[in-house]
Amino acid sequence: MNDVLIENIEFMKIKISAIAYHLPAKAESVEVLKADNPDWDMPKIFEKTGIVTRYISAPDETASDLAYEAGMKIFKQINSQKIDLLILVTQSPAYALPTTACILQNRFGLSTNCMAFDVNLGCSGFVYALSIAGSLIESGVVKKGLILCSDTYTKYISKNDRTCRPIFSDGAAAILVEKSEGNSIGPFEFGTDGSGSGSLIVKDKTLEMQGGSVFLFTMRVVPQSINNLLAKASLTLEDIDLVIFHQASKIVIEALIDQLKLDRKKVFTNYESIGNTVSATIPIALQDASSQGRLKKGDKVMVVGFGVGFSWGATLINWTI
Amino acid sequence: MNDVLIENIEFMKIKISAIAYHLPAKAESVEVLKADNPDWDMPKIFEKTGIVTRYISAPDETASDLAYEAGMKIFKQINSQKIDLLILVTQSPAYALPTTACILQNRFGLSTNCMAFDVNLGCSGFVYALSIAGSLIESGVVKKGLILCSDTYTKYISKNDRTCRPIFSDGAAAILVEKSEGNSIGPFEFGTDGSGSGSLIVKDKTLEMQGGSVFLFTMRVVPQSINNLLAKASLTLEDIDLVIFHQASKIVIEALIDQLKLDRKKVFTNYESIGNTVSATIPIALQDASSQGRLKKGDKVMVVGFGVGFSWGATLINWTI
Repeated sequence: MNDVLIENIEFMKIKISAIAYHLPAKAESVEVLKADNPDWDMPKIFEKTGIVTRYISAPDETASDLAYEAGMKIFKQINSQKIDLLILVTQSPAYALPTTACILQNRFGLSTNCMAFDVNLGCSGFVYALSIAGSLIESGVVKKGLILCSDTYTKYISKNDRTCRPIFSDGAAAILVEKSEGNSIGPFEFGTDGSGSGSLIVKDKTLEMQGGSVFLFTMRVVPQSINNLLAKASLTLEDIDLVIFHQASKIVIEALIDQLKLDRKKVFTNYESIGNTVSATIPIALQDASSQGRLKKGDKVMVVGFGVGFSWGATLINWTI
Repeated sequence: MNDVLIENIEFMKIKISAIAYHLPAKAESVEVLKADNPDWDMPKIFEKTGIVTRYISAPDETASDLAYEAGMKIFKQINSQKIDLLILVTQSPAYALPTTACILQNRFGLSTNCMAFDVNLGCSGFVYALSIAGSLIESGVVKKGLILCSDTYTKYISKNDRTCRPIFSDGAAAILVEKSEGNSIGPFEFGTDGSGSGSLIVKDKTLEMQGGSVFLFTMRVVPQSINNLLAKASLTLEDIDLVIFHQASKIVIEALIDQLKLDRKKVFTNYESIGNTVSATIPIALQDASSQGRLKKGDKVMVVGFGVGFSWGATLINWTI
């Protein structure tokens, strides 16, 4: 009887079995912003962003390169020949075609018996890719998937853009997903509101962000989405050990904590030292929380992505590493 | 016991419940190619391509526009508010970000309780998207998905490109996917060989194709992939009612028919009148085969996509329309 109930909730018998990330060598501090833009009110900007350090890809360093470095950290631990699914979440592809994931299949030396494709999503992308990889494993199409989240948004940002430059950072994460015995991941909650598509957009190779509109969207949909997710899972915030939001910026995360009346000790952040790396922020934060002992085997972690599209997604992960 | 055997094969209890396509208004004949390029040996080109008519998007007509028109043909038949998954397969996105599928979610007026994302794949893309949508339905994440396959490759092609221009055509297909009672779709067979990524690539907004290398790749992997698929399904070519290849060009499809010793009556083609519309060719051919009575309810059709990446995918569909 319990099985019947559980069947209606899309828990997945999949797990994250390894996770790693890579950041470009060049770290940029708020002092650099001030030097480039003497008229910027840095204390006011910092009060909103909370971001001290961002990472900047070199001119010839691509999202594909960052994803490769992150992926190779996984392939030091496991046999790459067992991978039969490669998903690259990126909005900084190498080419319009072919899909960058195919180039990475070859660069990693993976088996040709491998699905490989790019998913174009931003800050919600990790949660989407987790549901895609998980579903492909559950349906038996593949056995072992590597999700790569990688972007180089800084290449779309001019040095005088006060809205975007203090926030966005380049980086990549690699997440290994495979079958598990227990219901480790799910349910999922997703949404899309394309009426906000112009609020965060690249036109003429330049990122344009209407920060206020993105903030209002976030406050409108994310708390509701979290409540929907908890209702689906028949859980309350009490049952959650750790919450990891997309590391948008301080002002967004603080507002979400306030609105949801979250216990601050349950919210892990690392935007201060890493910045907003788009779809990579959640897996990077998972890895940091795990290595800092904030996330332990058996913990239930809620991950919540939201942003460009507008697009959002949330899920629960029983941590298994 | 039979159930145990079946469980190891990834048949999916999903079905294609509606399908439609849209082509740009401008049809271009081989005569136009000759007029633009008096030095081209048209009989020789036509012998290879077999393509009489291609469709050319207007300068201000995007892949998003074509996908919208194809999708609206489905939404005349069904309640669009029930859609909770929108996948756009494209290599002609409107922007680097946001993902074009989000823009289409809003343009269609879909519910915001909807996953929406672009998958960057070419000629294998429909089969990939079918496995992604099917898996998301099977795992319970979504209930009803619309797959859109749309590209405007002609915008990447100069009027004097003898390799690409006689082949590629613009178009979009829309495919509605939902739960079914029986095992209607599967198993799947996928592959990737990124060592061929340079053989079909857009650099400086221009498509470059090494036709010979794409042809050799196709002949190397596609027959083997079909044999693997049939072995997985415990079927032979005798059990297949209709075969629909990606409509690459006449020379490719004829070579596949010869190598596989296929019964020509079992192979449906429409490249002659429509050209190579990339990921849209297979669903466009499914719709044409269905409307021409070549594909009937209960038939088992094999679909095989292959091309840019290199990337390939094949599956079996029990036709339910």
